[in-house]
Amino acid sequence: MEVKKIVLPESEVPRQWYNVAADMPTPMEPPLHPGTGKPVGPDDLAPIFPMPLILQEVSQERWIDIPDEVMKRYLMWRPTPLYRAYSLERHLNTPARIYFKNEGVSPAGSHKPNTAVPQAYYNKISGTKRITTETGAGQWGSALSFACSQFGIECKVFMVKISYNQKPYRRMMMQTWGANCVASPSTETKAGQTILAQNPDSPGSLGIAISEAVEAAVTGKETKYALGSVLNHVMLHQTVIGLEAQKQLAVAGDYPDVVIGCAGGGSNFAGCAFPFVRDKIHGKKVEIIAVEPASCPTMTRGPFAYDFGDTVMMTPLLPMHTLGHGFVPEPIHAGGLRYHGMAPLVSQLVLDGLITPLAVPQMETFQAGITFARTEGFISAPETNHAVAATIREAIKAREEGKEKVILFNWSGHGLVDMAAYEAYLSGKLADHALAEAEIQRALREIEPLPKPRQYRPLKP
Amino acid sequence: MEVKKIVLPESEVPRQWYNVAADMPTPMEPPLHPGTGKPVGPDDLAPIFPMPLILQEVSQERWIDIPDEVMKRYLMWRPTPLYRAYSLERHLNTPARIYFKNEGVSPAGSHKPNTAVPQAYYNKISGTKRITTETGAGQWGSALSFACSQFGIECKVFMVKISYNQKPYRRMMMQTWGANCVASPSTETKAGQTILAQNPDSPGSLGIAISEAVEAAVTGKETKYALGSVLNHVMLHQTVIGLEAQKQLAVAGDYPDVVIGCAGGGSNFAGCAFPFVRDKIHGKKVEIIAVEPASCPTMTRGPFAYDFGDTVMMTPLLPMHTLGHGFVPEPIHAGGLRYHGMAPLVSQLVLDGLITPLAVPQMETFQAGITFARTEGFISAPETNHAVAATIREAIKAREEGKEKVILFNWSGHGLVDMAAYEAYLSGKLADHALAEAEIQRALREIEPLPKPRQYRPLKP
Repeated sequence: MEVKKIVLPESEVPRQWYNVAADMPTPMEPPLHPGTGKPVGPDDLAPIFPMPLILQEVSQERWIDIPDEVMKRYLMWRPTPLYRAYSLERHLNTPARIYFKNEGVSPAGSHKPNTAVPQAYYNKISGTKRITTETGAGQWGSALSFACSQFGIECKVFMVKISYNQKPYRRMMMQTWGANCVASPSTETKAGQTILAQNPDSPGSLGIAISEAVEAAVTGKETKYALGSVLNHVMLHQTVIGLEAQKQLAVAGDYPDVVIGCAGGGSNFAGCAFPFVRDKIHGKKVEIIAVEPASCPTMTRGPFAYDFGDTVMMTPLLPMHTLGHGFVPEPIHAGGLRYHGMAPLVSQLVLDGLITPLAVPQMETFQAGITFARTEGFISAPETNHAVAATIREAIKAREEGKEKVILFNWSGHGLVDMAAYEAYLSGKLADHALAEAEIQRALREIEPLPKPRQYRPLKP
Repeated sequence: MEVKKIVLPESEVPRQWYNVAADMPTPMEPPLHPGTGKPVGPDDLAPIFPMPLILQEVSQERWIDIPDEVMKRYLMWRPTPLYRAYSLERHLNTPARIYFKNEGVSPAGSHKPNTAVPQAYYNKISGTKRITTETGAGQWGSALSFACSQFGIECKVFMVKISYNQKPYRRMMMQTWGANCVASPSTETKAGQTILAQNPDSPGSLGIAISEAVEAAVTGKETKYALGSVLNHVMLHQTVIGLEAQKQLAVAGDYPDVVIGCAGGGSNFAGCAFPFVRDKIHGKKVEIIAVEPASCPTMTRGPFAYDFGDTVMMTPLLPMHTLGHGFVPEPIHAGGLRYHGMAPLVSQLVLDGLITPLAVPQMETFQAGITFARTEGFISAPETNHAVAATIREAIKAREEGKEKVILFNWSGHGLVDMAAYEAYLSGKLADHALAEAEIQRALREIEPLPKPRQYRPLKP
């Protein structure tokens, strides 16, 4: 009988996270204070994050210990299984060996708890009683709600109002874990009140929700704010994915030629990819592909520039690939990939040529998701389908080239609370169109790229 | 670090199902033909089931091989992890050691694929091109859709219309796996047409949907029908759960004092419990508890009688605990437990005193589900919460008695597509009430118990 999945014993879950900052071939540009334009220091971040997370954000240590109290929660779903996609391989008639890491087995159904749990933990030991955050479709909000319930911390989630109304299941998950989830704009913050005064029917936006969550953190007692992607410490926590995958592939006696992940803010991609980036810097031959939606082509079209992390210009300026903080992405179903920027660490590695970005149109991602569900059985989140689509492209290329390629992709989460997206696709209500292009053109005109971004030049072997 | 879950290697997945029929201390009463009243033979069932399943239905062999093609699909999610519920134990301050078997990791999110896959397989090798079935809330319909997609069989699901409209996510899952799901009553069968002629706005019922599915199977070319619970072969396929759990508990060095499962038609309960029933028949001391809703108390209140499996009196008469085929259970959220009867094998074992039935009210089950989500992290299906509630009762009893009891329960599925039930509970819209009692009383008056059911008398040790 073929071995379908490789499951490590609990004792093999990595005890340390891998910090790619220690190995960056090009030094990172610093984040800048939005008011002064000067580099942001730890003290600037202290009002919104607890100090252990700030120190991780700026750490240059290669390996950072995972605390026991975090590990105990990781063991609720980690190590996650690494699957060999035999059925998909046969369906595609490819000589490629396809592996996927199933991060959908967590209580929240995605990779997000990998960082939600340590964030809740470091807040707990720093005396935080209440954490605020924003959420769009609800992946992050639900993961943080779960994590806070584990440490007895109050959780307040500002959920974009249109999603709050249209996608109630993740909101209900948050409430089940005891979080307080409100539709944003809300009357609970000045930011929300201001928006509502201008437009009582505002559907909300991620930008507004961030403003509300940050304001609630800064003005609240013993309250901090948490972010589910983009920042260095978030990428760090996610590296358990790739570290586990490396051990599992070793058990299978394989090493990937290609590593694939979808990228919105960059965290699930980075989590799977960074340990392989390290190998690549040290000479391993591996292609690392970050997949984004064609309608929000941050890495493939956006320049490397200093930009705000949010749309309301409250956050520090981050050095990253961006379409501009004013970019309004098409309303595609992969809500988690509708972000104007990209994690600075991922952005710099794209700039350095260590990561290859790829943009895929929505229709292709759903077709890939259907193929995956009818071969491998699992129904993917719409975001995850971007990784599936890129994998299928690579597998077909391997067939055409007659190459026994090994492909690893990160299956970042299941789509059981995103079924409406599948229904829209199956009933013919979706189409790829060029609506996005005008907005991309408009947005690009407004961005000023960094004049001469520092860039890694690999030595010729 | 405490070991949180015990995961077997794939090579340890049982290669045979366990057939409790071989060990029944009291011979089973035969099913009777609804027309003639005579025992049903294999030929009577041939129009609706393929012969390999009919032979399993009547088999007395103790161990039945799991075919390789079934095993390959089982390995998509099996072996499932056995969890130690440390957080729940601490929360309850109990000396009990609580284990749960997580059947929610399957593609469909429940135990149902354990039987859907072999049913699809045996149909495939028997030349079936199309399988029909009925589904209420959609657990079974989605599992069968997944299984049929694995074997290239068309799947037609008649879904009770009110659920079809109110619970669209599982319908969309079925469609994603390629099944044809229609609202029942439909215009596609005579049964459906008749109902619609009388009442064009009929919300449908499981009874009507069964009629449509059976009619479509009998009248269709190369078409068979599939059932997700109640029958002997369904119980058989589910025993992989308990067989795995036995191996996992042996790894942990434990043996359960109590085994718990929720029971609607009986299949997830039987799957976990029957291997322990075998041990009990052979002298092991273990309490085996089947948990049902207080509003549909088939085992605790219903007599052992011959009754139809469906509400429209088309199926053979089955010897079972029943509230009568005309019983209309309260509209509780655990849709999978709203069944008037109980699997004959489970019923006979209840009658023989080897299984202890327990009825739990709905409010207690949701309270248990919230406690579980906020300790162990996972959000259970409303059906599963019945097992959680019984487990909490046992754990509290262990604390009060100061006993180091070992409890195993079957966590039959997650509730991520049932979140509306949690919202109803959290927003105070649910209450236990006595509406059910009048209907139970009415139904009981109409049932004629078997005059002197055969019954097992264990020898005094």
